[in-house]
Amino acid sequence: MAKNITTREEDYSKWYNELVIKADLAENSGVRGCMVIKPYGFAIWERMQAELDRMFKETGHQNAYFPLFIPKSYFSKEASHVDGFAKECAVVTHYRLKNAEDGSGIIVDPDAKLEEELIVRPTSETIIWDTYRKWVQSYRDLPLLINQWANVVRWEMRTRLFLRTAEFLWQEGHTAHATKDEAIFEAEQMMNIYAEFSENYLAIPVIKGTKTESERFAGALETYCIEALMQDGKALQAGTSHFLGQNFAKAFDVKFAAKDGKLDYVWATSWGVSTRLMGALVMTHSDDNGLVLPPNLAPDQVVIVPIYRKEEEFEAVNKVALNLVKELRSNGIRVKYDNRDTHKPGWKFNEYELKGVPVRIAIGPKDVEKGTVEVARRDTLKKEFISSENAVEKVLLLMDEIQSNLYNKAASYRAEHTTEVATYEEFKDVLQGKGGFILAHWDGTTETEEQIKNETKATIRCIPLEGSNEPGTCIITGKPSERKVVFAKAY
Amino acid sequence: MAKNITTREEDYSKWYNELVIKADLAENSGVRGCMVIKPYGFAIWERMQAELDRMFKETGHQNAYFPLFIPKSYFSKEASHVDGFAKECAVVTHYRLKNAEDGSGIIVDPDAKLEEELIVRPTSETIIWDTYRKWVQSYRDLPLLINQWANVVRWEMRTRLFLRTAEFLWQEGHTAHATKDEAIFEAEQMMNIYAEFSENYLAIPVIKGTKTESERFAGALETYCIEALMQDGKALQAGTSHFLGQNFAKAFDVKFAAKDGKLDYVWATSWGVSTRLMGALVMTHSDDNGLVLPPNLAPDQVVIVPIYRKEEEFEAVNKVALNLVKELRSNGIRVKYDNRDTHKPGWKFNEYELKGVPVRIAIGPKDVEKGTVEVARRDTLKKEFISSENAVEKVLLLMDEIQSNLYNKAASYRAEHTTEVATYEEFKDVLQGKGGFILAHWDGTTETEEQIKNETKATIRCIPLEGSNEPGTCIITGKPSERKVVFAKAY
Repeated sequence: MAKNITTREEDYSKWYNELVIKADLAENSGVRGCMVIKPYGFAIWERMQAELDRMFKETGHQNAYFPLFIPKSYFSKEASHVDGFAKECAVVTHYRLKNAEDGSGIIVDPDAKLEEELIVRPTSETIIWDTYRKWVQSYRDLPLLINQWANVVRWEMRTRLFLRTAEFLWQEGHTAHATKDEAIFEAEQMMNIYAEFSENYLAIPVIKGTKTESERFAGALETYCIEALMQDGKALQAGTSHFLGQNFAKAFDVKFAAKDGKLDYVWATSWGVSTRLMGALVMTHSDDNGLVLPPNLAPDQVVIVPIYRKEEEFEAVNKVALNLVKELRSNGIRVKYDNRDTHKPGWKFNEYELKGVPVRIAIGPKDVEKGTVEVARRDTLKKEFISSENAVEKVLLLMDEIQSNLYNKAASYRAEHTTEVATYEEFKDVLQGKGGFILAHWDGTTETEEQIKNETKATIRCIPLEGSNEPGTCIITGKPSERKVVFAKAY
Repeated sequence: MAKNITTREEDYSKWYNELVIKADLAENSGVRGCMVIKPYGFAIWERMQAELDRMFKETGHQNAYFPLFIPKSYFSKEASHVDGFAKECAVVTHYRLKNAEDGSGIIVDPDAKLEEELIVRPTSETIIWDTYRKWVQSYRDLPLLINQWANVVRWEMRTRLFLRTAEFLWQEGHTAHATKDEAIFEAEQMMNIYAEFSENYLAIPVIKGTKTESERFAGALETYCIEALMQDGKALQAGTSHFLGQNFAKAFDVKFAAKDGKLDYVWATSWGVSTRLMGALVMTHSDDNGLVLPPNLAPDQVVIVPIYRKEEEFEAVNKVALNLVKELRSNGIRVKYDNRDTHKPGWKFNEYELKGVPVRIAIGPKDVEKGTVEVARRDTLKKEFISSENAVEKVLLLMDEIQSNLYNKAASYRAEHTTEVATYEEFKDVLQGKGGFILAHWDGTTETEEQIKNETKATIRCIPLEGSNEPGTCIITGKPSERKVVFAKAY
């Protein structure tokens, strides 16, 4: 059914922008680059938060909260960190407004200038490590396994809803460990948790890997990542986990006494995913009819629409519908019963298709007579009549089926759009053609990486941790390469 | 057992500050007035959030997220609103740092000045009403029942952990309605939800009432509030709900077409509670031994401490303990089993008393022999041995008993510290004596209110909505008074 949305084929980017707005996920605000996350979009984000939070807690992490503001001097303490973020920082310089003396209105009070400017956190390593110094004296205080859910600000010049916004919501884990091995284990564990979350909840298959030096987080020794592929053949980094070595511990003087009494700097990790995942979710599964949501994250897994003309028809239909609502809920299904009489069934069908509700159940007077209901799947758009006695069983089955189907579809798309190439010519052909992930040998230098990026706009998404790792020769320089790495154009 | 905390009698204020830090709830950060909420404190806040969020959703509210920043021009649109907040606003003026040309380090880039300054939200009415304009056209779009969980910033000069901080966490509900009556109903409903939450979860009895004109929220026509009494006889405002009339709709031009097609401005409410509730929780129930937490909010409701000397003793004790942990958890109890061998039982007892865990269970080799466990209540500090077979039943009983006991204790304290007075002399005597809530007749003028405040530091906490409402004469002016109002010194 037509939704007046640009099709993906016509203009993928426009399709995305329109869909995010029409499906009531988010919209631009009056503040440059800052979005409003609307209730329907936020309900999906809340489901993501709930699952991730559970996974973090099951692996021993606790939540805490650290200040929004970071004094400029803290922020500048770790050299590569400040280099990475300085150009996109919102800076608080004053703490008061007042009426202008010339009567022209409200102005910033020049007498209320801060002694030291405050940076609105773009990420919290510096303020957190300044705090950890007070929390860590001995090995007994370690590990610290802490996460925070927070808003952060990066003053991006070009913004797009969810994908790149000046303010976004995220979680940032910050852990402190007694040994290098423990910290590396933690960073890898969190990458694995992100991958598991992505595959089991978002239904998005990901490649796990490490970033090249030039793509690493500012201040990290190693950045682990998960990389997903969107329907336009572009990659999207869906989560990162950083092994920070002792960089922040040294910058903030965080030492601990080991069992043998020796003082050493603490080892660190940090890791995060953000509302960017909302963009990944939309771009992986949705179609020209609107959103397609995986049942594990859909705020409403099932919508029930009653169909009737006369009042007495409604009574009979309503009875069946209410009974089904109750049964589905007692089976843990999130059900919306849309019995509004202000909107027609056709309008509602259209609306829930646009909103990506996984299963729609329609019940009319004939269904009541026959003891059937009509069940429609959002993913395949297939409809069938089933006995209403089997409706709960069917819905429970569909929850799993739709979740798997979305994952499998995305995995097939990725398989079709993953190409191993042997030459730079092939590389460019694939990139100009179907795009997607390209596996190619690379000599390990930033120089070659830059050359490819400048010539093709493709970047190294990651050095994969799984799959074939046969050595070969770089497609540009012919120098030796340990294994193929993953290239793509990326969001 | 001594905790090296100042006693309440010695210095209530110092007791509070020390307790918040020693019980690992929060600490000051390196950023002026901004606190770090530590994992234990945050776990309590998360429980508050979970219960409130459930109550909001059960009454039809949805969560959303609006920008952190508010353009100065929006912020200035509602006159009394800007008057109320202008003096305590953090202002973002720049969006970039750079290296100083003289090599002196990182500076704010003067070329990156914003065209319009941005206010870090002290509350979000203005940015939200600017958004609602786009969401509301007809009565069909109403009501909007939206809440957000967010951080806000008010540049307070004197700060205290939880009670008054430059940045704090809160929820702010913002609703839009077609009629005045609906908006008033909503504002009252949310006050009632706050009262219910306070009494059933925080175990804090509250007085429901409305604020006088001078104590109202900046921009409100009526502010409903719940007022609690702390153990030092001072009042604490624990939540507010505002009927905003059409003030913000007019300032942001939010109109809707009614059923009859007529255009009218939308009616508004806003309502919020904050991490200040953490301060209220501490100050209401805790004692000179540390925190006392109501079971409904305690992150750990029960702690089990094994007592043993030899390894074979541990094995027997551990078996009983693990079994009990399992049984308690399957009954929905949050249990911590502290089997660390790095700390002695005495240290642990002390620690969990300080942390306010409602029930402590100790199990030693003799208990295993006799089939008993030792159960200690945090609220009364009473201990008893019971048959381990009855332990689960006993704990379930204690959860209710302790929750009620804390509420009843606080209610008794309040009853003892609520005094009706007939004269200003009496008023001053009570205030200098035991303090607490003072009910007195007031002539309804801001002038009299100010006089009493200046002379005694007591303010009108609220005009109560319940209780006796006999008319009388003002204790200052002798003019007629409709009913006694509630005075107190307040946080």
